[in-house]
Amino acid sequence: MPYVNIKVTREGTLPGETATTPEQKKALIKGVSDLLFEVMGKAPHTTYVIIEEVELENWGVGGVTTPEYRQQIAAKADKST
Amino acid sequence: MPYVNIKVTREGTLPGETATTPEQKKALIKGVSDLLFEVMGKAPHTTYVIIEEVELENWGVGGVTTPEYRQQIAAKADKST
Amino acid sequence: MPYVNIKVTREGTLPGETATTPEQKKALIKGVSDLLFEVMGKAPHTTYVIIEEVELENWGVGGVTTPEYRQQIAAKADKST
Amino acid sequence: MPYVNIKVTREGTLPGETATTPEQKKALIKGVSDLLFEVMGKAPHTTYVIIEEVELENWGVGGVTTPEYRQQIAAKADKST
Amino acid sequence: MPYVNIKVTREGTLPGETATTPEQKKALIKGVSDLLFEVMGKAPHTTYVIIEEVELENWGVGGVTTPEYRQQIAAKADKST
Amino acid sequence: MPYVNIKVTREGTLPGETATTPEQKKALIKGVSDLLFEVMGKAPHTTYVIIEEVELENWGVGGVTTPEYRQQIAAKADKST
Repeated sequence: MPYVNIKVTREGTLPGETATTPEQKKALIKGVSDLLFEVMGKAPHTTYVIIEEVELENWGVGGVTTPEYRQQIAAKADKST
Repeated sequence: MPYVNIKVTREGTLPGETATTPEQKKALIKGVSDLLFEVMGKAPHTTYVIIEEVELENWGVGGVTTPEYRQQIAAKADKST
Repeated sequence: MPYVNIKVTREGTLPGETATTPEQKKALIKGVSDLLFEVMGKAPHTTYVIIEEVELENWGVGGVTTPEYRQQIAAKADKST
Repeated sequence: MPYVNIKVTREGTLPGETATTPEQKKALIKGVSDLLFEVMGKAPHTTYVIIEEVELENWGVGGVTTPEYRQQIAAKADKST
Repeated sequence: MPYVNIKVTREGTLPGETATTPEQKKALIKGVSDLLFEVMGKAPHTTYVIIEEVELENWGVGGVTTPEYRQQIAAKADKST
Repeated sequence: MPYVNIKVTREGTLPGETATTPEQKKALIKGVSDLLFEVMGKAPHTTYVIIEEVELENWGVGGVTTPEYRQQIAAKADKST
């Protein structure tokens, strides 16, 4: 009876997309469900997978929001070249 | 000081509704709060109840999204009759 | 397919007990499951209820741990009498 | 590698605002990240902070929704003056 | 920067084991991390996977604890043969 | 009425300690509570802070458990010097 909660930032990760696509969600759900069956023998009909998309400005890392953090990382990468 | 988090799919469960109604939310909050008082003596003003509604395509079970899972169940039920 | 997570402090709430008893856990599970059926028509076999017990010193309120907070409340009550 | 989840009601807490502002979110993210570094030495780039805003009618306390609870508190305060 | 929380009952799912083994935990972590990279391009070093094991008597389904639920299912299966 | 959940690995971060100390927990609770008051005006007695300590082998990053990940990082650092 596993319960899996996946949180990702709300943004596109495929060309032309601005959010996680239905196909990506299906792939996540299937992948996690298969994994729990293969590793632990959990019957898929007992595995709940809940995907939550979090606004970029609501997700912090490095003491700043995600967009600011990525800018910092990109700026550092520029300097090191 | 209990904390209760209720996650349900975002959909109507009453005729003509497309989402959990305000009355249903009130009933959930009151019911959970009463329950924690009756079973454990928890003072209601210390019990937080947070209801989260999750899009159907973001909730997986059986390795597929909820709408797909229900179709599978319905198809099986049809076959067995 | 509801998912309900109940967090309570790990302590006894019945005479002579130092933790939530098995009977209390059963009552919480049954109560929440019944509630979701009555209010939203959710089939009990689809409702997951997960109870988590949190050490008193890991649960804060009022800027202090739960035991300290209760002492503050008790001290205030003493003064007001 | 701390993970911090902050849930607040979705409403304005500054004059003229109807929601948590981007500046408030930044301050929460920075504050929590700094705190974990100061208290536990956790490197900020390993600390995730996720802010979730919950509709007022989805957040219960005292057996009622937050708006109803505040009305009750306000009514009591009125009576006691 | 995905965050994945996996909750399973605390029990053995391999012969002779009474809990999830370290190898199973590693397989879950690797599997989820790979999945998020393949489906969404998420860099593995940004994916946190947290496994939580929940006591059987703290996990409810069908209005009863997990052990009771399994007994009910087993009893039904017996009757139908 | 904020709810804050802090998850950290179960390990010592101060000399001679093997877990988060009571003093560190108090500092986290006070710090988060103060922060929510300063940034959003939230009354401390309404802020719940719940600290959860997660076994190192139950926390994955980079597709491996935390101890393995740290070894990888340390090995890379060695090579680069």
